[in-house]
Amino acid sequence: MAEEKHLRDLRTVWWQEDASGEAVCMIDQSLLPGQIVNLTLTNEQQVAEAISTLKVRGAPAIGVTAAFGMALAFYRLLRDRDDELTPAEVQEHLHAVGEMLGRTRPTAVNLRWAIDRILRRADQALSEDCSGPQLAQILRDEAQAIADEDFQACLNMGRYGAELIADDDILLTHCNAGFLATAGWGTALAPMYVAHRAGKHLHVFVDETRPMLQGARLTAWELQQEGIPFTLITDSMAGYFMRHGGIKAVFVGADRITANGDVANKIGTYSIAVLAQAHALPFYVVAPRSTIDLKLSSGEQIPIEQRNPGEITSVRGIEIAPVGIQVANPAFDITPHSYLSAIITEAGIARPPYNHSLHKLCLGYHYDTERQVSN
Amino acid sequence: MAEEKHLRDLRTVWWQEDASGEAVCMIDQSLLPGQIVNLTLTNEQQVAEAISTLKVRGAPAIGVTAAFGMALAFYRLLRDRDDELTPAEVQEHLHAVGEMLGRTRPTAVNLRWAIDRILRRADQALSEDCSGPQLAQILRDEAQAIADEDFQACLNMGRYGAELIADDDILLTHCNAGFLATAGWGTALAPMYVAHRAGKHLHVFVDETRPMLQGARLTAWELQQEGIPFTLITDSMAGYFMRHGGIKAVFVGADRITANGDVANKIGTYSIAVLAQAHALPFYVVAPRSTIDLKLSSGEQIPIEQRNPGEITSVRGIEIAPVGIQVANPAFDITPHSYLSAIITEAGIARPPYNHSLHKLCLGYHYDTERQVSN
Repeated sequence: MAEEKHLRDLRTVWWQEDASGEAVCMIDQSLLPGQIVNLTLTNEQQVAEAISTLKVRGAPAIGVTAAFGMALAFYRLLRDRDDELTPAEVQEHLHAVGEMLGRTRPTAVNLRWAIDRILRRADQALSEDCSGPQLAQILRDEAQAIADEDFQACLNMGRYGAELIADDDILLTHCNAGFLATAGWGTALAPMYVAHRAGKHLHVFVDETRPMLQGARLTAWELQQEGIPFTLITDSMAGYFMRHGGIKAVFVGADRITANGDVANKIGTYSIAVLAQAHALPFYVVAPRSTIDLKLSSGEQIPIEQRNPGEITSVRGIEIAPVGIQVANPAFDITPHSYLSAIITEAGIARPPYNHSLHKLCLGYHYDTERQVSN
Repeated sequence: MAEEKHLRDLRTVWWQEDASGEAVCMIDQSLLPGQIVNLTLTNEQQVAEAISTLKVRGAPAIGVTAAFGMALAFYRLLRDRDDELTPAEVQEHLHAVGEMLGRTRPTAVNLRWAIDRILRRADQALSEDCSGPQLAQILRDEAQAIADEDFQACLNMGRYGAELIADDDILLTHCNAGFLATAGWGTALAPMYVAHRAGKHLHVFVDETRPMLQGARLTAWELQQEGIPFTLITDSMAGYFMRHGGIKAVFVGADRITANGDVANKIGTYSIAVLAQAHALPFYVVAPRSTIDLKLSSGEQIPIEQRNPGEITSVRGIEIAPVGIQVANPAFDITPHSYLSAIITEAGIARPPYNHSLHKLCLGYHYDTERQVSN
């Protein structure tokens, strides 16, 4: 399918194996749009550093990266050890790596989910007495499966979400929930890509998304690649263009969704949700089921990552504020479910009450199955 | 009065006369907080350029600058001409200069107001047969009077507004409506300064205010100078901290206020007003009566200045977005009066209905009087 191929070429994270060994490769998103630089990460510490410094970001992309990072760590362990590894040693090592990778971004549930899935796959394989090289292959395949399933899930989200977009619609999005944030297609942008390729005319208002400017740097770049007309605005202009710009709906991604439908997403999402409600605009959250954390009953239970004050006091290395001041930098906020019109997943669209609809969508979908169940 | 002296020392625009001639001087606000550079502008074109490039900004400060610029233009005319000037020539020249200065920032009503006041003063003096040197002195004195009256008006706004601030209040402000934006004290920040000096404990959340970052650069600098505790946040965090940060009220300035109480102010103000209403927080606009334009019945009639796209696609010279994209950059938005809790002026506090209260506050206050009537 031509459209899939096109976006598959734009994968942001991939596994590489050559004479020099195994590596996790990625586009360094922190340098976009100015430079397109591919990173070759050859150990799990480099993978952790790439996640924590936002060289790769976006909840699903982080999950894929961490899964490849786990496989990479095992390849390295295997190479470094001449003697036979005991199953206990392997498990201890993988759990330690999982712990380290899991600490890089505390809010993204996909990160923990992907790490746990690799750990469970390792446990299963070890219980079946596989060899070291067999286990390496199994873990790499499992990480690749996570990537491939995410790609397909994003396309499905795009297809469900595109039904909510009419020809000539003007839309608003925040941060980057596009193909860069996932294994392909994206989450919040996937419905736009599917609608656009189906011939619908769109115009997208793109919030620049301070402090890290993922909207200005990444979403603008993605939409430019895809040829979808858009207007870049500052975050503070969202209300203005809801009132004057003809915006018809808002599409955002999610880093974590709780059982009641509360959504953790990039800081500023909550403000936009309140503004959307005040302007009677639909507010859609697009996220795979791996983002849904049914163990948490509400958003109050989601830890909010506090990031480096330097992200606020400087922009790309240029100081913009007085020295020595107090700064707050929560990376995420919680949008209560009452502000949502729907949650679009790869398995369908959840509507209120979310306690019911999310539970139903996640039936037959378990974090601890070897494969996600696509229905 | 000690506190007045302190802030008088922080005047941002002043008249200078020495052996090399007359000049309008100002702190170059576009370089704050990194550098404190004083500009010496020796002709009206330089004054216009300083206004249009935001070296001086803030509606009242722009008015003071333009008034000094008018006086400077006449000093130069007088110096360049050996022969006798006719009243018609003087008027023609001053009107042309007023036209040029008036075009620099179309939204700020104080700019036009200050220019018109200088023109009227000139007309009056010419009708009384004054000499060229006398007229020069008269125009300079008139510009100085505009500055001095603004200083006193700001202090009065501060005193009225401080009554609305309780000990231990947490406040939010947007952009810079402080002493840098006026002849002293500021507008939205004046109540905080007065309350702080009266011993009330405050904490201020400061929106960074993209694209030009007046909050991060100027308000943060001012509050730091004054010793008021504050936290710098991105514009997108306002909703988050209204919900979680204990914010008790919002104080913003205004660039123009129409007869019905609609307010033009820095882009993003409208979003904050909607958020404040959603969180049941008082939203106060602080502005001198020179900002009130009773000739306009509603905000729909206010022209919105569209500024350079480069302000969005770059930050202090660093490109942050792909090349060649479409950008929107309205400098202001309109906050409908229904979102306002009160308008604080130097003559008292206006409450809804504003058509009545603003009219009453402006009684006895006319743009075309030689002096503003302080009551």
